[in-house]
Amino acid sequence: MNDDEKAIRGLVDSWLAASQAGDLDTLSSLIAEDAIFMVPGQPPFGKAVFMAASQGITAARFEARSEIQELQVQGDWAFIRNHLDVSMTPAGATRPVKRSGYTLTILRKQTDGRWVLARDANLMLPQ
Amino acid sequence: MNDDEKAIRGLVDSWLAASQAGDLDTLSSLIAEDAIFMVPGQPPFGKAVFMAASQGITAARFEARSEIQELQVQGDWAFIRNHLDVSMTPAGATRPVKRSGYTLTILRKQTDGRWVLARDANLMLPQ
Repeated sequence: MNDDEKAIRGLVDSWLAASQAGDLDTLSSLIAEDAIFMVPGQPPFGKAVFMAASQGITAARFEARSEIQELQVQGDWAFIRNHLDVSMTPAGATRPVKRSGYTLTILRKQTDGRWVLARDANLMLPQ
Repeated sequence: MNDDEKAIRGLVDSWLAASQAGDLDTLSSLIAEDAIFMVPGQPPFGKAVFMAASQGITAARFEARSEIQELQVQGDWAFIRNHLDVSMTPAGATRPVKRSGYTLTILRKQTDGRWVLARDANLMLPQ
């Protein structure tokens, strides 16, 4: 595994840890300013909308398992295919909301050498 | 627009024309042998499964509109974000099945210089 692959796997780990900890600053640092998120049934949206939608995780119990199925690097771009199992219990709720499914994510290496999420197609549906 | 961008836009046009004509040979020629297709609610699948699922279009009336929202090329890889409006009337049916939505597609330039579809996340849902 080369340095870029290690860095990208580290990004995925940091993403899940930040989500679990409700650490929005770290989460934000992993996302390109011009990132675009795609989910079924709605138009693509940007980083500001993603971060606003993520406010809820600070008060939720969040657990996720990630299994990277493919990782390819081409210069300053890379993509990963991931399988995610996510369980989130909103504050005050007794039962978790569970979602499971696959993602296709394009990452970009910034001029400072850090990899960030650039485009994300998330095909997860409620279980 | 450079030659790669032109070729990739041509691939999208050929894809839609081949789908409309029920021309499975042309459709197949636009897809990498190791291509992976991703849709909501099921595991990723390969070219053989995609082509088998496409048999139905030979006897259907198929119409599609495509609007490429983004196209980026990096060496021998590229990605496009597309918005699709698809209407398919299966043989014998009187009403079309309509679907609409967004796709994130990764393309690869083969050693023969041709661009082909390599990874496709299709977030379309029934309308």
